[in-house]
Amino acid sequence: MSTAWTSRYALRTKGITSSQIRELLKVTQKPGMISFGGGLPAPDVFPVQRFEEACHKVLTEQAPSALQYGATEGYEPLRELVANNISRYGIKAKAENVLITSGSQQALDLIGKLFINRGDRVLVEAPTYLGALQAFNVYGAEYVSVPSDDNGLRTELLEAPLRSGPKFMYVLPNFQNPAGTTLSEGRRHELVLLADRYGIPIVEDDPYGQLRYEGEHLPPLVVLDRENLRRDDGYSIGNVIYLSTFSKTLAPGLRLGWIVAPPDVIGKLAQLKQGADLHTSTFTQFVAYEVARDGFLDKHVRLIRQIYRERRDVMLQALEECFPPEVTWTHPHGGLFLWVTLPAGIDMKAVFESAIEQNVAFVPGDSFYASDVREGSRHMRLNFSNAAPEQIREGIRRLAAAVKSHLTAGTLGAYAPLEV
Amino acid sequence: MSTAWTSRYALRTKGITSSQIRELLKVTQKPGMISFGGGLPAPDVFPVQRFEEACHKVLTEQAPSALQYGATEGYEPLRELVANNISRYGIKAKAENVLITSGSQQALDLIGKLFINRGDRVLVEAPTYLGALQAFNVYGAEYVSVPSDDNGLRTELLEAPLRSGPKFMYVLPNFQNPAGTTLSEGRRHELVLLADRYGIPIVEDDPYGQLRYEGEHLPPLVVLDRENLRRDDGYSIGNVIYLSTFSKTLAPGLRLGWIVAPPDVIGKLAQLKQGADLHTSTFTQFVAYEVARDGFLDKHVRLIRQIYRERRDVMLQALEECFPPEVTWTHPHGGLFLWVTLPAGIDMKAVFESAIEQNVAFVPGDSFYASDVREGSRHMRLNFSNAAPEQIREGIRRLAAAVKSHLTAGTLGAYAPLEV
Repeated sequence: MSTAWTSRYALRTKGITSSQIRELLKVTQKPGMISFGGGLPAPDVFPVQRFEEACHKVLTEQAPSALQYGATEGYEPLRELVANNISRYGIKAKAENVLITSGSQQALDLIGKLFINRGDRVLVEAPTYLGALQAFNVYGAEYVSVPSDDNGLRTELLEAPLRSGPKFMYVLPNFQNPAGTTLSEGRRHELVLLADRYGIPIVEDDPYGQLRYEGEHLPPLVVLDRENLRRDDGYSIGNVIYLSTFSKTLAPGLRLGWIVAPPDVIGKLAQLKQGADLHTSTFTQFVAYEVARDGFLDKHVRLIRQIYRERRDVMLQALEECFPPEVTWTHPHGGLFLWVTLPAGIDMKAVFESAIEQNVAFVPGDSFYASDVREGSRHMRLNFSNAAPEQIREGIRRLAAAVKSHLTAGTLGAYAPLEV
Repeated sequence: MSTAWTSRYALRTKGITSSQIRELLKVTQKPGMISFGGGLPAPDVFPVQRFEEACHKVLTEQAPSALQYGATEGYEPLRELVANNISRYGIKAKAENVLITSGSQQALDLIGKLFINRGDRVLVEAPTYLGALQAFNVYGAEYVSVPSDDNGLRTELLEAPLRSGPKFMYVLPNFQNPAGTTLSEGRRHELVLLADRYGIPIVEDDPYGQLRYEGEHLPPLVVLDRENLRRDDGYSIGNVIYLSTFSKTLAPGLRLGWIVAPPDVIGKLAQLKQGADLHTSTFTQFVAYEVARDGFLDKHVRLIRQIYRERRDVMLQALEECFPPEVTWTHPHGGLFLWVTLPAGIDMKAVFESAIEQNVAFVPGDSFYASDVREGSRHMRLNFSNAAPEQIREGIRRLAAAVKSHLTAGTLGAYAPLEV
């Protein structure tokens, strides 16, 4: 029904629709549904006991401050904890370089607000994180998508897109959402050099960096950039803004993320945050600090790694066992997702509907491409962190059945075994 | 120091600077400072024990859900509690009409995002809430300011401004921030009729409505609007969007506000909220629900009213005792603020600096006028909720001394008694 308001929506809201994932989450409420759709942590990894102790401590020892208005930049001890935590990766940040945000999604929104004029181009990976597209779309972003492969963004294809003058690049180097791939060390160096040569800065989104299940940690872009610029004066200058979150290591229900940036950018972002929500909940910040402190976060992340590594392995094995050979998937070294590629010509909408009928959900790949990518996708994003191992096995069995029912002579091609 | 980012700020950030209040809050950290500056609740009114019980209950009985991702629209029981709570004022809302926001500030930001194109005019009171100006400025709002007096917005001056075609009106009918005044019942009727006649909808901001210390509750605009439209089908249609918050009744550190609107507007706002911060903290929503439920909120609000009424009275009496007769102030029937008017010609900047020297802080009135109001202000906003009664007396004594030191022959005018 229309009201006095309906005719008054601003231009920027045209074409802003609810994300497919959000609608999906509604379907996944159905009883018996096994969901590989959302990016939800396993419900059993939340450190509930530690949360309870933290709430008790905060409310008995710091009650007025923890419930009162707070600084827009965030709770100082939490900013210090973040700065200290990321120093292990060589990121030389001080508390003043850290802005606490209401989840990493707000970090993306504030970056869009600060940098994107209507029509500005943002260089993104294809595929890329749909939450970033949603945040940037509202500010009128256009996109230059650059293809990626198993080693992440294909840096050898970057020069022409960079010459077209994007406002910045948005990159997820570790266990990318949705593809699950990791940018190789060689490409990291190349990316930072190109950013410097063409004067195009980088937003490095790293929500999953700590959740590595195999291989060695690779240096963040923000560190390589500083080395390249031969600056050793901490985070006072640089081409890279670094984002991360407590959503995957503590709990997403806290809505606590952060931005690491040079002080002038932090100051400007804080001004915008002031108008956006004044500050992030002091209570959740105090509680998160009490939960994370004294090495608990590291210990807890080790536990999460162990649980998610097992789930990833279970999913990889189930895919191997259940899926026909013409279907391929990525092998993520960490994070929450893997990316399945179905044969060309497959009807993804039909596959999705069959999957829902079979009580298994995933996110069709289309959602993860910016508006400059025209062709439909034959991909599925599968989350392996939320469902328990037995559910993962059962869910992949159901999904394989749904996929197989839509593999036709046309999609199978020459190499398709007859028995599929 | 400038970086690759500095030259890339979007046009919308031009002229966005930190609010005076925010800078002020830094000054008020000084030891010995008595602050009438912020809009902070009294630290001793937070129901800490009840919070502790709520945290315990939520974490033992609802732990995975309370820490997990949640719905963008908000936690369903909390939406219902809000809808139920406001029904006492005649607002016929259902849960589906309620969007939980990250503080009332986010409500203002989302409204700006949804409705304001660059150059659109917003009709505001003069003076008005500076947080709304901050939220709307970033979307390029222009303003039509309409003067107010002791009975709120002067509706007899509205027709010409309404004919200029503002996108909407932004009004605080109860115990306005900053002026502390209340829109009279007659003017409420008139405002709603004019809104309907000119087809200009209203954003009704009501953060303090429950904190009334004298007189009878007056009907909200949203209720009068429905009566005027002769609709009795709940909140399915209407010209008024209604905003409120738990910041003044439970705790601002939770960052929990809400928007009440027709379903199509709620749907659109939820899409924008999804890109802005995905959803408001599930944990604080679960905790707030447990704190507020079973009539606790009402009981607690009665306690707050009692405490703040006393502080208001102490401040009014101290003003009466300490301030010279050519200084006047409003007599708020509720809320957190009163508004002091100094003689014309006073040097407000000098008064403010003297006050800070004397260890007492307030917010100079300039901050509360939209950009279309050119003349400087001779007003001070004083908060009476945060400081204890004895501090209020001492603070007003100091403030009176600071003010008197800047009253000159020029400012005193004809009616000034010589002994001042």
